[in-house]
Amino acid sequence: MAGSIFGTILKISTWGESHGKAVGVTIDGCPSGIRLEESHIQQWLDRRKPGQSKFTTKRKEEDRAEILSGVFEGKTTGTPIAIVIHNTDQRSRDYSEIASYYRPGHADYTFDAKYGFRDYRGGGRSSGRETIGRVAGGAVAARILERAGIDLYAYTKEIASVSIDAGNFSREAIMENPLYMPDREAAKKAQEALEKRMEGQDSAGGIIECVIRNVPAGLGDPVFGKLDARLAAAIFSIGAVKGFEIGDGFQAARSRGSENNDSFCIRADGSVGKKTNHAGGILGGISDGADIIFRAAVKPTPSICAPQQTVNRAGEEITAVIKGRHDPVIVPRAVVVVEAMAALVIADELLLNMGTRIDDVEKFYRRR
Amino acid sequence: MAGSIFGTILKISTWGESHGKAVGVTIDGCPSGIRLEESHIQQWLDRRKPGQSKFTTKRKEEDRAEILSGVFEGKTTGTPIAIVIHNTDQRSRDYSEIASYYRPGHADYTFDAKYGFRDYRGGGRSSGRETIGRVAGGAVAARILERAGIDLYAYTKEIASVSIDAGNFSREAIMENPLYMPDREAAKKAQEALEKRMEGQDSAGGIIECVIRNVPAGLGDPVFGKLDARLAAAIFSIGAVKGFEIGDGFQAARSRGSENNDSFCIRADGSVGKKTNHAGGILGGISDGADIIFRAAVKPTPSICAPQQTVNRAGEEITAVIKGRHDPVIVPRAVVVVEAMAALVIADELLLNMGTRIDDVEKFYRRR
Amino acid sequence: MAGSIFGTILKISTWGESHGKAVGVTIDGCPSGIRLEESHIQQWLDRRKPGQSKFTTKRKEEDRAEILSGVFEGKTTGTPIAIVIHNTDQRSRDYSEIASYYRPGHADYTFDAKYGFRDYRGGGRSSGRETIGRVAGGAVAARILERAGIDLYAYTKEIASVSIDAGNFSREAIMENPLYMPDREAAKKAQEALEKRMEGQDSAGGIIECVIRNVPAGLGDPVFGKLDARLAAAIFSIGAVKGFEIGDGFQAARSRGSENNDSFCIRADGSVGKKTNHAGGILGGISDGADIIFRAAVKPTPSICAPQQTVNRAGEEITAVIKGRHDPVIVPRAVVVVEAMAALVIADELLLNMGTRIDDVEKFYRRR
Amino acid sequence: MAGSIFGTILKISTWGESHGKAVGVTIDGCPSGIRLEESHIQQWLDRRKPGQSKFTTKRKEEDRAEILSGVFEGKTTGTPIAIVIHNTDQRSRDYSEIASYYRPGHADYTFDAKYGFRDYRGGGRSSGRETIGRVAGGAVAARILERAGIDLYAYTKEIASVSIDAGNFSREAIMENPLYMPDREAAKKAQEALEKRMEGQDSAGGIIECVIRNVPAGLGDPVFGKLDARLAAAIFSIGAVKGFEIGDGFQAARSRGSENNDSFCIRADGSVGKKTNHAGGILGGISDGADIIFRAAVKPTPSICAPQQTVNRAGEEITAVIKGRHDPVIVPRAVVVVEAMAALVIADELLLNMGTRIDDVEKFYRRR
Repeated sequence: MAGSIFGTILKISTWGESHGKAVGVTIDGCPSGIRLEESHIQQWLDRRKPGQSKFTTKRKEEDRAEILSGVFEGKTTGTPIAIVIHNTDQRSRDYSEIASYYRPGHADYTFDAKYGFRDYRGGGRSSGRETIGRVAGGAVAARILERAGIDLYAYTKEIASVSIDAGNFSREAIMENPLYMPDREAAKKAQEALEKRMEGQDSAGGIIECVIRNVPAGLGDPVFGKLDARLAAAIFSIGAVKGFEIGDGFQAARSRGSENNDSFCIRADGSVGKKTNHAGGILGGISDGADIIFRAAVKPTPSICAPQQTVNRAGEEITAVIKGRHDPVIVPRAVVVVEAMAALVIADELLLNMGTRIDDVEKFYRRR
Repeated sequence: MAGSIFGTILKISTWGESHGKAVGVTIDGCPSGIRLEESHIQQWLDRRKPGQSKFTTKRKEEDRAEILSGVFEGKTTGTPIAIVIHNTDQRSRDYSEIASYYRPGHADYTFDAKYGFRDYRGGGRSSGRETIGRVAGGAVAARILERAGIDLYAYTKEIASVSIDAGNFSREAIMENPLYMPDREAAKKAQEALEKRMEGQDSAGGIIECVIRNVPAGLGDPVFGKLDARLAAAIFSIGAVKGFEIGDGFQAARSRGSENNDSFCIRADGSVGKKTNHAGGILGGISDGADIIFRAAVKPTPSICAPQQTVNRAGEEITAVIKGRHDPVIVPRAVVVVEAMAALVIADELLLNMGTRIDDVEKFYRRR
Repeated sequence: MAGSIFGTILKISTWGESHGKAVGVTIDGCPSGIRLEESHIQQWLDRRKPGQSKFTTKRKEEDRAEILSGVFEGKTTGTPIAIVIHNTDQRSRDYSEIASYYRPGHADYTFDAKYGFRDYRGGGRSSGRETIGRVAGGAVAARILERAGIDLYAYTKEIASVSIDAGNFSREAIMENPLYMPDREAAKKAQEALEKRMEGQDSAGGIIECVIRNVPAGLGDPVFGKLDARLAAAIFSIGAVKGFEIGDGFQAARSRGSENNDSFCIRADGSVGKKTNHAGGILGGISDGADIIFRAAVKPTPSICAPQQTVNRAGEEITAVIKGRHDPVIVPRAVVVVEAMAALVIADELLLNMGTRIDDVEKFYRRR
Repeated sequence: MAGSIFGTILKISTWGESHGKAVGVTIDGCPSGIRLEESHIQQWLDRRKPGQSKFTTKRKEEDRAEILSGVFEGKTTGTPIAIVIHNTDQRSRDYSEIASYYRPGHADYTFDAKYGFRDYRGGGRSSGRETIGRVAGGAVAARILERAGIDLYAYTKEIASVSIDAGNFSREAIMENPLYMPDREAAKKAQEALEKRMEGQDSAGGIIECVIRNVPAGLGDPVFGKLDARLAAAIFSIGAVKGFEIGDGFQAARSRGSENNDSFCIRADGSVGKKTNHAGGILGGISDGADIIFRAAVKPTPSICAPQQTVNRAGEEITAVIKGRHDPVIVPRAVVVVEAMAALVIADELLLNMGTRIDDVEKFYRRR
């Protein structure tokens, strides 16, 4: 079943394995007339690039985006935008050992169980390199959001149990440290915790929070196309995500109705607002105009240096030690992936929503 | 945008408003040859029926399922199965007040913002009655799961902060109390907590856990069609769900790689198993043969008796008191809805997965 | 596989068998705010009703449309519109004979081959009654077209080799005779030809032409979502259709480029027009603003009174005589089905097309 | 709207413009375990290559297929197969003239009308080069058909009104002349007719016929997913196609029921067969086991050397002469495109159909 295509009107189709020739994405259904350069995509790719700190793998992935179609005279044409990123750091090494057994916490076993065999070089399609296509697609979606006046960003909320408050911080603070954690004190503590994990040949997980501002009220389609359901699917499609919550999330389950309900109010400009935002900007699956706020729980990197018990393809129980270069935590690099998937969902919803009212449809076609 | 259709090969299309003539569902893509009677569906509907305890609304909803098509001589024909449930308890009362303002925590405002107006009678399409179609669809999906040897059930894990352990309990224990909480002590405590909330004119939320046993390894499609991503979308499409997690979920974010990785082992029958199941039965978006375990966080019922601050359509801030009959907690009635959505996902995946390997395709068509 | 759902943004889901309890349709994705009454749908259903002349079956099908959801205070709400039509003329007769063999030209054999058995009463899902849901859906789509200023109609172009020219005729002339053939002379000849076929225990086919006026230039999506490709799929999904062509169609294959190319010109109002319309209103899969004109070839009714050679389920060759009430030609009753399917495609395209240019997207969301 | 993705389980996503850097396709949902080499794809591409005779453009398009992902150790992995073909013959010439006006019979005007501007270099996305992605995708689909024992081929049935009979000819005869017309006499006449058209600065169209043998009975899904409806959409998505018919097609509209019905019979091996095949292998939208036979009408090449009347973007009526290298007929090169689209549909249907009966589903999962 085709599982590498995402979206309804705005669709991305990603492809590529960790150690294949290239990875890439085709963005179909993108509106025409958007200024788009390779540099727009490169900025996003650079944020997921490894090798930027001691907490990310030392692999040198150049990840240079090349646009092959869909852009003419600097603008999107409305036809598919193909983007390719060649794999430049495919060290030719011996994969025969990794081919023979199943790494715990990885998709080695399930790929074999499903397909009968797998591309075992560096995880193949289940590698983190798969996200490059998403990020490139998200970079394009972000250009649509800009035009609609929507602001979207994500950051590290927690790593190795070191957490920060939603509180006040500047957008710039996110980029100030390699963990994308906008709180200097906490980031320092998190780095110390990470170093300890590395010393113990172990790894850490964490939580990413995403905020989307200025989303118009009205996006999302009852009942299965709820905006939160689409976001949940998008975020849960990122490898290593084990939980998703919106607004107060799991905490809402412990709350009272009187606390959890957001009172409506009239804003200075006469529009309807809310006094609080426990709902996280979505009511009944439709955006309510408040900030959309959600969180994703990311599991600890399964690749650790310590020996682990597992089985090989010959059906024997063995103790294996995974070699290679791996991140002790993938949260910081996943931040931009979360942004990309959220941007793709919101951009798609913007396009889907335009024909919701017959008056808008009439106006659109009669004026022409 | 059509948002009331769910699934890929096995699709349900639900319709109906709280106070309209009827609600219903059409199941398309169901395999032929399945024994199906109205009683199979009725059993599922009866579990979400209100009026069964003091914690569910006193409305008397008969919810009698009638199969209108797709079944012949007691078996599914492979063509669409239409099921209708007539609304019998549509008290004709005065809705003019509720029409005039937006109930906090409800979809009143967002429906108006999206569509320009709304069916305000009892919540219209955003009412809990919308789930009847899902449950009827899930009852049919469950018949497919049975044939494939898969066992699926959900239960209340937490209400009003009273929680139970995953521990050992019999399937029968789930049905023993009106909260579907399979722990007599905890259920009693939860009931007391609920009574207090009701006294305080307030409401409670909770957590539902779902377990799916005997799922064959190999279901789910990388990268966007991950099995957990599809489950997340399905469960998040249920109104009032604010969080979803699989396996250790948010707790995994605080775990170490060495703890969170499940070691593979060889089972007595020679097949590959896992010693633990922190992953919740899914690795890399594909089922690994272990139990699939997930949880959904449900917010407290937004309809509470206490006065609340809100705004009316005239743009004035007002204090409103919501009349009518409402559940102080919707968790118990949502248990069967969670089961239904999970069953629909798994059944769809079973059908999607059959052509994954060319050898299976060849065998299927050559033998004929 | 779910095959009874049609459309992308505007979707219909049809269900029901010839001799089941009812047939129906759910329209999902319909814009909100459209005035809709049962009478709008009834007018369309009445046009496909049998028993209106000696050329249509004498069955009395009341086909009364009942709207069960999606309409509130006389307007569509934007949520699914469920329409049910109860089967009132299900004569309880003996179907054991028809169950035992395969009628030539019918889907009896292929349904058995696919599903392992079939609902043999009156053709089950492959009966012409299946089209009732489409027609009801088309009636709703037509309301969208009206609002966009689009005019759509079909008529009988040929029956039993008696053909009419595209020439000049009034819209009213279509309804003047039971064959929906807007040419008095030709209609008379066609009726005579039909009578002869009936005398000879035989049946006839014909050609339906459909014209769509005032379609804005720009509908349709290269390369697989070409407007003509979507129309072809829609029309070919109608039972008994064996050919589809647009503009000059098959005749274009015999034409020269210099003849077949339509020269562009500037119209009185300064807009771009075409001097001829060999293309039938679509160039490169996108509407060009000229009338869309297409034709469907309909095979002769397979149910004929003459004895036919076939086989039974026991694997024996037999001679069978099909009893029951059948139309000697289905073309006139299929005219409204062609209109319905075309209306559904165009309405869907109108909604799909609104977000094609980023400037329109920006304008739509910034003005709010 | 994403219009460059085709298929349900087996999906292709094509991209690329005539004079961009490259064209390509991603095939998603392809079963794992299929032996696949670049040479398999190259063979298909070579058949649509121009410059092979005086009837095809002299452009030298190398069209070298490179597989970038989805194949490991010579076999498909089940994950997306990305194929890229670099554009090598992009003569840098002056396009300013063609940019200024609309070529009759081309999509220049409609692209501008839809998107607000267009990539005018060589037709951009509406160029025939767009079909390269389809052909590469079809080459992969053909590998699936082979495994299922299905045989598929197309050929030129008519060019410039010179037609051949369905009659008897060897498969090899198709490749014997540059027109892919398996009748030496007719091919010679057609070539003469073509030469005359060229002398007259004009062009020709024609008809392509496709035959698919050994299709198992049971493919296709009532009612909208009829196999002929899917084929119609697939073939009509090819540029320049103006008509599609199956079996007797438009001729069936003039036939009698007694002639058009195919009598069933018992074959030597005891299976059900048909004595004739007027239906073209599909009854009620489901394959009946007989050969599937359909035809596509292709319009004459719109690019002709003779001067033509048209308008420019400044809104003036002008006479234009189109320069450049163009085929006087595109039928021969479209033959392989028809094969590709048909192969994609049948392969997709094979995968979709496997879970049609619950007994097959049960057997598949219980045996594991």
